[in-house]
Amino acid sequence: MKGNDMTTDTTTGDAPVSSTYGVHSEVGRLRKVLVCAPGLAHRRLTPSNADDLLFDDVMWVENAQRDHADFVNKLTQRGVDVVELHDLLAGTMALPDARAWLLDRLVVPNRVGLGLVDGTRSYLESLTPRDLAEQLIGGLATSDLPEDFRSGYVTLARESTGVREYLLPPLPNTLYTRDTTCWLYGGLTMNPLFWPARQEETLLYKAVYEFHPDFVGSTVWWGDPEQDWGQASFEGGDIMPVGNGVVLMGMSERTSRHAITQVAAALFAQGAAEQVIVAGMPKLRAAMHLDTVFTFADRDIVTLYPTIMDAVHTFTLLPGDAAPGVDVVDEESTPFVDVVARALGLAKLRVIETGGDVYQSERQQWDSGNNAVALEPGVVFTYDRNTLTNTLLRKAGVEVITIVGAELGRGRGGGHCMTCPVIRDPVDF
Amino acid sequence: MKGNDMTTDTTTGDAPVSSTYGVHSEVGRLRKVLVCAPGLAHRRLTPSNADDLLFDDVMWVENAQRDHADFVNKLTQRGVDVVELHDLLAGTMALPDARAWLLDRLVVPNRVGLGLVDGTRSYLESLTPRDLAEQLIGGLATSDLPEDFRSGYVTLARESTGVREYLLPPLPNTLYTRDTTCWLYGGLTMNPLFWPARQEETLLYKAVYEFHPDFVGSTVWWGDPEQDWGQASFEGGDIMPVGNGVVLMGMSERTSRHAITQVAAALFAQGAAEQVIVAGMPKLRAAMHLDTVFTFADRDIVTLYPTIMDAVHTFTLLPGDAAPGVDVVDEESTPFVDVVARALGLAKLRVIETGGDVYQSERQQWDSGNNAVALEPGVVFTYDRNTLTNTLLRKAGVEVITIVGAELGRGRGGGHCMTCPVIRDPVDF
Amino acid sequence: MKGNDMTTDTTTGDAPVSSTYGVHSEVGRLRKVLVCAPGLAHRRLTPSNADDLLFDDVMWVENAQRDHADFVNKLTQRGVDVVELHDLLAGTMALPDARAWLLDRLVVPNRVGLGLVDGTRSYLESLTPRDLAEQLIGGLATSDLPEDFRSGYVTLARESTGVREYLLPPLPNTLYTRDTTCWLYGGLTMNPLFWPARQEETLLYKAVYEFHPDFVGSTVWWGDPEQDWGQASFEGGDIMPVGNGVVLMGMSERTSRHAITQVAAALFAQGAAEQVIVAGMPKLRAAMHLDTVFTFADRDIVTLYPTIMDAVHTFTLLPGDAAPGVDVVDEESTPFVDVVARALGLAKLRVIETGGDVYQSERQQWDSGNNAVALEPGVVFTYDRNTLTNTLLRKAGVEVITIVGAELGRGRGGGHCMTCPVIRDPVDF
Amino acid sequence: MKGNDMTTDTTTGDAPVSSTYGVHSEVGRLRKVLVCAPGLAHRRLTPSNADDLLFDDVMWVENAQRDHADFVNKLTQRGVDVVELHDLLAGTMALPDARAWLLDRLVVPNRVGLGLVDGTRSYLESLTPRDLAEQLIGGLATSDLPEDFRSGYVTLARESTGVREYLLPPLPNTLYTRDTTCWLYGGLTMNPLFWPARQEETLLYKAVYEFHPDFVGSTVWWGDPEQDWGQASFEGGDIMPVGNGVVLMGMSERTSRHAITQVAAALFAQGAAEQVIVAGMPKLRAAMHLDTVFTFADRDIVTLYPTIMDAVHTFTLLPGDAAPGVDVVDEESTPFVDVVARALGLAKLRVIETGGDVYQSERQQWDSGNNAVALEPGVVFTYDRNTLTNTLLRKAGVEVITIVGAELGRGRGGGHCMTCPVIRDPVDF
Repeated sequence: MKGNDMTTDTTTGDAPVSSTYGVHSEVGRLRKVLVCAPGLAHRRLTPSNADDLLFDDVMWVENAQRDHADFVNKLTQRGVDVVELHDLLAGTMALPDARAWLLDRLVVPNRVGLGLVDGTRSYLESLTPRDLAEQLIGGLATSDLPEDFRSGYVTLARESTGVREYLLPPLPNTLYTRDTTCWLYGGLTMNPLFWPARQEETLLYKAVYEFHPDFVGSTVWWGDPEQDWGQASFEGGDIMPVGNGVVLMGMSERTSRHAITQVAAALFAQGAAEQVIVAGMPKLRAAMHLDTVFTFADRDIVTLYPTIMDAVHTFTLLPGDAAPGVDVVDEESTPFVDVVARALGLAKLRVIETGGDVYQSERQQWDSGNNAVALEPGVVFTYDRNTLTNTLLRKAGVEVITIVGAELGRGRGGGHCMTCPVIRDPVDF
Repeated sequence: MKGNDMTTDTTTGDAPVSSTYGVHSEVGRLRKVLVCAPGLAHRRLTPSNADDLLFDDVMWVENAQRDHADFVNKLTQRGVDVVELHDLLAGTMALPDARAWLLDRLVVPNRVGLGLVDGTRSYLESLTPRDLAEQLIGGLATSDLPEDFRSGYVTLARESTGVREYLLPPLPNTLYTRDTTCWLYGGLTMNPLFWPARQEETLLYKAVYEFHPDFVGSTVWWGDPEQDWGQASFEGGDIMPVGNGVVLMGMSERTSRHAITQVAAALFAQGAAEQVIVAGMPKLRAAMHLDTVFTFADRDIVTLYPTIMDAVHTFTLLPGDAAPGVDVVDEESTPFVDVVARALGLAKLRVIETGGDVYQSERQQWDSGNNAVALEPGVVFTYDRNTLTNTLLRKAGVEVITIVGAELGRGRGGGHCMTCPVIRDPVDF
Repeated sequence: MKGNDMTTDTTTGDAPVSSTYGVHSEVGRLRKVLVCAPGLAHRRLTPSNADDLLFDDVMWVENAQRDHADFVNKLTQRGVDVVELHDLLAGTMALPDARAWLLDRLVVPNRVGLGLVDGTRSYLESLTPRDLAEQLIGGLATSDLPEDFRSGYVTLARESTGVREYLLPPLPNTLYTRDTTCWLYGGLTMNPLFWPARQEETLLYKAVYEFHPDFVGSTVWWGDPEQDWGQASFEGGDIMPVGNGVVLMGMSERTSRHAITQVAAALFAQGAAEQVIVAGMPKLRAAMHLDTVFTFADRDIVTLYPTIMDAVHTFTLLPGDAAPGVDVVDEESTPFVDVVARALGLAKLRVIETGGDVYQSERQQWDSGNNAVALEPGVVFTYDRNTLTNTLLRKAGVEVITIVGAELGRGRGGGHCMTCPVIRDPVDF
Repeated sequence: MKGNDMTTDTTTGDAPVSSTYGVHSEVGRLRKVLVCAPGLAHRRLTPSNADDLLFDDVMWVENAQRDHADFVNKLTQRGVDVVELHDLLAGTMALPDARAWLLDRLVVPNRVGLGLVDGTRSYLESLTPRDLAEQLIGGLATSDLPEDFRSGYVTLARESTGVREYLLPPLPNTLYTRDTTCWLYGGLTMNPLFWPARQEETLLYKAVYEFHPDFVGSTVWWGDPEQDWGQASFEGGDIMPVGNGVVLMGMSERTSRHAITQVAAALFAQGAAEQVIVAGMPKLRAAMHLDTVFTFADRDIVTLYPTIMDAVHTFTLLPGDAAPGVDVVDEESTPFVDVVARALGLAKLRVIETGGDVYQSERQQWDSGNNAVALEPGVVFTYDRNTLTNTLLRKAGVEVITIVGAELGRGRGGGHCMTCPVIRDPVDF
């Protein structure tokens, strides 16, 4: 990994594999993508803790795994190279340096608790790389710690509340790989996430990008989970590198102006982008991320939920001469889709609204009906359950491949949320 | 300030004033106390944001100020030296080094936002120390920034949500000085607070302790707002240095086992305490802090809310030979008050339960009926509204001085929460 | 009482006292008003049950009583004849027929529970009229029933939940006499209230209107608590007989179109009003009743909260020839205040908006800042705490007399909510 | 229908079909059962209104219909006569008298609104019986009313909130046929349901029982939707006629002591049962109905969720000589299952607890894991997703047939909730 805040020994003259990585559009041919299968973390979800862990409901994990595997299979059959987070993390944990690096940071008194560091470390060191990866993502409950590794401090932990019962917290939102890191053209951001329940995710990714042979050497534009980011939070569901040097960013509950302006400045300074279009989201729960109400289905086709998108206030950020290097343009009442079309050099975007009457469209948006992810121009994955929106997409000539959403959708994320593209081709406008 | 992580120039041979500071009991003569008057931060409370800012209701600020001033006056008339946070911070901000130190940390892109650093800094530098202190505690809204100090980035901030609309967040919970720092015998802790809405408070205190002539040189046992504390959170409402080398600590939503064990180890290692008694609080909202359900009224009299205290699971932490230096004793079914009495060398504690029938006692606990703060043994301040509990205390021979609680109580804190003792005498057991 | 659904023996030639009753405006001289003092019902409020009983917080009952008595005293000193509900109900319960009528309806298996009818009835019969009135309004807990009057069924009741623990439910919202019945010109409505927690109130009023010598013979335009009203609910806080034959009605969560149209038809058919103006309230919690965001302070001055009133959709209902006798006029985008001014024959209404900046006005509306009740044209009562709105009213020449709101306001109702005018003079327009 | 409050012309000498109906146990051979397929009412569910309509989430209606049809098919293949509510209601609406009877009660000003009675009635009269049944269960939105049938009053309805927008409300909880009426041995109860969102259901059933040739003449022990039941509410999910003259009744949020004692008295007086065992449920949301935490799987096997069942307080109701004819026995600390076993003459009940660790069992209970419905002794239907509990049942020798629960379960009801047995054989104990 190279970049602004990490160093790597790259004495060999060969460029790393990751030098070929990059995401150059929202709908160009998808070649490599990062996903994360449901697992132990989701077995830990209950009606009592689901809210704190940002899930609306518990899921049937075996079926969620089946449906996720089917999604992966469909991607693979269409020629996409799919990498899975447990696999990547296991591959990383097989490297002694990487394992030491990560456990040095995770197994400390501020996380596992004083008096539990040695036992927890010994236990984790005793695991296979695969089992260790499971526990890092799935969480380590006090009851998971075998008797030999316990101390008197365990009894205190058992009486704690919520996530503090755990020695390592379960991270069920890893399912949504879109958010934690984003590839924007030739480099990536390692994101400070908004909710405490997700903030631990980014450190796992740093271990992967720092050590895993397939990812080492990646360019990092911005972000480092070992720094404190204050009010700056940034989640990939709000971010879209649409091509033409343009990046869309939703300014939402979870993605703050503090982060948006910093990332824009970093992209402009490093020549990575020429323009950022900010969608100022209305202050509503249903407007969690930009990609829950707006995604691309073809080079000039978007699917969106008008009830929320009509209330968006748009800004354009451009490189500026004066420090800190960003000029802010208030687009006033110009509709977001028009600003985006103009930036892409298109006469206009064709818009597919969420299908059905007032009841149905509200339900379809809720069920991630607008959360499409493209395989290539005009070919998208969406949940099966949003039949009306899917029909409208098909009528517009888009090929729609469905994912079973009965279980996977219960955390309120769809195909776009569950994928972090690593290599995606540009498109022409 | 001396201690584990801060340095101060103390070239003069005179001991600092603060070397006489210390809190040696919960009921010994109170000689010096830190409070914070209601103000601008409370004018920012609305029905929409009150929840996020941890208040149950909005308050009538003028009357809250009147009632707080009356409380301060009663303390002063009884011979207590009362210092107020706005005053302290203004005194600190009058020192150029201190002002630079604090603004260097607060006025950064991660807090105020990129492009707003220079204007915000210039504006704050233009203020008198008193006005600066007001704005640091009361928050800086985008609308507070005069036109001359604005940039194009202000428009982004206006469209942000919640606390991110602000350039500096309002800190209405500063009213509860008890929580942010705690004097435990001859030194203090600078606490990592649980909720994001309060975490900025501790940095203000660090500026005071680092620079203000009356506080410089204070011994810090543990804590530093410039570090990341992970799962370790610690709030003074859970902490009571009861004397005899004993500290009580509530393990609650807001005070974690991670912090409790670290503070215990730090106190033991520095010879500051000999025993920590942990009250494992039940997982209920009403059980926010230990001092919302249990406080001392005399050397051997406590007032408590039995519904919650009956469900406490007690542990004793003792110095241990093996690293990390703490032995955990599970007190099993022994009642908390019995463990405390034993540690103080008392045959038993006299218990005054919350007064009234099942309806009244629930209401009185809610209205901080058990949140007494002692002036000296057998003399306490409580809210006027808890007449039944006050009567029971009086019947037990305790002198009860009342505080008007109609407005002050709306953040669910009473006299104990609103006071941070700085000098309190020991008592004999 | 005479009217559409009740009969009374009026063999004597003298007209009843109530024939002089009537409310002919919102701001004409107030001559007789009905209020209800806080009491036992409010002692039953706790943090656990407050929500179900529609209160935001618990109150200090003694102080609420003091502040209410002060309000009553100020009314009396200004020459208003104030009648109090406990007094009225005690006076009614002193009449054997009335007592039998009410207890026959309340002490039945569907309310107190099978097996508890005889004991409860015997106990209530043993009380003085005053004590009986206390228990009818304040509720009868199982623990209130003396041992002699109990049966084995009491044990089942103790294990029940919420309001079902009670033999008679506490009715703390009786404090807001405005809602339960409304005098509209020369007659009244007996209202079906929206929330189950309030529905019992209306039956107590029927006993008063049916039997109390001061109220017997009152004309009832509409409503009877002994009928089932389905979706029709109607609360006085939404209703204003502004004069000139006009009645304003807020169509809100609590006042339904079903009731509004029926009352309009009843008023038109009985010649009691010529026009009803409907304020279609936006679907927001803060817009509970019309009088929480809009009241009159003088013949042509209103105080209102623009954030909500700007979103009102207005309709006018007029007598129609065809059954059921009402014509509906959609006022489209004409502002509510303009429709009202036109109906009153005024060029325009002078509008005093809620005072202060965005934070302050939101808080003042919440604290009943717009909930003024007029003593006479240009003289109103409001809560003391809304100082900014009060100042604006005074600047407009309105005399403002304050009520202490610290405790009384915790159920989110002000002076308008706490008063049910019985005699009020007309005003000229 | 014969019984306490309805009359029927039974001039013919033939006994009605319904004289053979009756439910004599919880696990005897199920011969006839009433269900209700998902439909229009569920298409009306959105994230905004789901809470008010008592659903946790929206459902994919087409798949819910597929899964429900599969459940019905499995029942049919096993020899059960399944009747469906839309069919029954359509059959009833084909009878002019029945149609008039029901529409006379539903299409009235208090329900559809003044001025909308004639148009709504004409529209509903114009429908086929099947379409009418759809609209009665699925609700009639203002937008469903064709232009020809509208009046000016429609505009008021459109601006109303929540269920008041509708002319007839959607009734999605009809899916849970268990609750609305209960066959207890040879007769039934027509239940007053707790939540307003469900109260309209019972009137539809009364039309069926009063007029449909297959149900006319049914014995009604208790209940009539045309009466006001005050605090008495009763839901079939809490009621189990286990055989041996015993009925179990959960006393819960939804089933009140007022109803339980009245039904017990009615059953005893009519010789329909000899004993009622009351499970006093703890005051927790998860403890909605008894059958969400306790059901029978075989004559002596129950599946239960111990976390809640351990907190049940048990009472036995027996016929008493003195009016009102019921003796209450407090079973004190005797476990509910022991009281039930004793009443059935069994040495003990075999208990299958919810499967899995603390996380899994909480999830399985939430997903209706204990909500089994028996086909015959030792053969039950449950949701597929509760694999751990299903495995435990199978290990105990119970045959488990699964229902797909991904969609059907989102209203928090399982196989037991979705079935109202009409004919079930007794079992021997």
